[in-house]
Amino acid sequence: MASPIAEPAVVTEPLRLYSYWRSSAAYRVRIGLGLKKLPYETVPVHLIRDGGEQHSEAFREANPQELVPVLQHGARLYRQSMAILEYLDETWPTPPLLPALARDRARARALAQTIACDIHPLNNLRVLQYLEHEWNAPQPERDEWVRHWITKGFTAFEALLDDNPATGEFCEGDAPTIADCCLVPQVYNARRFGVDMERWPTIARIERACLALPAFDAARPERQPDCPEAQRA
Amino acid sequence: MASPIAEPAVVTEPLRLYSYWRSSAAYRVRIGLGLKKLPYETVPVHLIRDGGEQHSEAFREANPQELVPVLQHGARLYRQSMAILEYLDETWPTPPLLPALARDRARARALAQTIACDIHPLNNLRVLQYLEHEWNAPQPERDEWVRHWITKGFTAFEALLDDNPATGEFCEGDAPTIADCCLVPQVYNARRFGVDMERWPTIARIERACLALPAFDAARPERQPDCPEAQRA
Repeated sequence: MASPIAEPAVVTEPLRLYSYWRSSAAYRVRIGLGLKKLPYETVPVHLIRDGGEQHSEAFREANPQELVPVLQHGARLYRQSMAILEYLDETWPTPPLLPALARDRARARALAQTIACDIHPLNNLRVLQYLEHEWNAPQPERDEWVRHWITKGFTAFEALLDDNPATGEFCEGDAPTIADCCLVPQVYNARRFGVDMERWPTIARIERACLALPAFDAARPERQPDCPEAQRA
Repeated sequence: MASPIAEPAVVTEPLRLYSYWRSSAAYRVRIGLGLKKLPYETVPVHLIRDGGEQHSEAFREANPQELVPVLQHGARLYRQSMAILEYLDETWPTPPLLPALARDRARARALAQTIACDIHPLNNLRVLQYLEHEWNAPQPERDEWVRHWITKGFTAFEALLDDNPATGEFCEGDAPTIADCCLVPQVYNARRFGVDMERWPTIARIERACLALPAFDAARPERQPDCPEAQRA
């Protein structure tokens, strides 16, 4: 295990994560919480059942965007997975989710955003629902749409990894950063849609290194309390 | 002018911004550079002409994602507008683009990402080109798609502004932050697609406050060297 081993952090106000087992944005935050060894309570928000609990009045008060994750820390609510990861890093700095130097931090953030800004938002549930219900796009076209943006994004991501000596055991150096917190959930998503990951050997290698760490393993969708029994295998 | 007035920053290595006048991601970075009073050279990348210069071999070496902006600082290249803004803030801290406290920084970042992750990526040129060329979606449907995601996003953004006493003259407090760097270009985009901004009075008020500042004014698309003469009026 390459990441520094942290003592469990001191958390004076409880942490609650509004999450859905298969949401890749929530998955990122679960990894971050795990790397910091922060104890938290999961509040499942079922994104499908009854039209989606994220659209309920109660949840809209927590997040007018009607999206998970939301992190509650004490009385305060934090939204947007990338902002939450930065908040975790600033509040509990060990182990860091970002490198020390500004230039390296920029690279880790840019890699993370390659996924968080340019792949994931296009393939989000609400977008696929729009394509299905507003445009009547059939399933094969929607799946092709998903694979298109993943393929485009991962091809660039792999080039950015291969082209740079800063790439180590993980995306940036030899400890996991926010880039890895984003990469692993996106690879999970890619597999769900039948994307062949063998095209990107560096991504595949880094995913394996990540999943060998307890924090990444515990954050997997199939380990979540709201994962249906049939999907745990 | 509410933001602290900075002396021109010391820049020992030159800054060059690969930009396109109407790219809203490049527009964000131009605002950040302007707020920091950082001198930089604009390298125009024409996103339309000849199929798009961002797809040229030369530009792909700068950014395998084939997207602007890219910031060159000395010999190094920085990608992804949000990562670039954080890099500017860490390298030249005055005036800050983020508040001092972690919880306030998280709010500014979350507002920024509401746009950078959940509105803009869906309405990007490459997405509209995919809808046009792969799906033969006619112009009115593509425009409706753009307006849909802007409307959804801005309605949540307005609620997040209205619901929080931290909202000041700008999105977070009384000085511009990365949230404002993202908001103003997105409002520009919304107008281009005929979205009525009067539905969101707080957003409209903050946009006016921003555009009154020289840094925001200088970053406008119509002030860029690569803006066609006919569009400058």
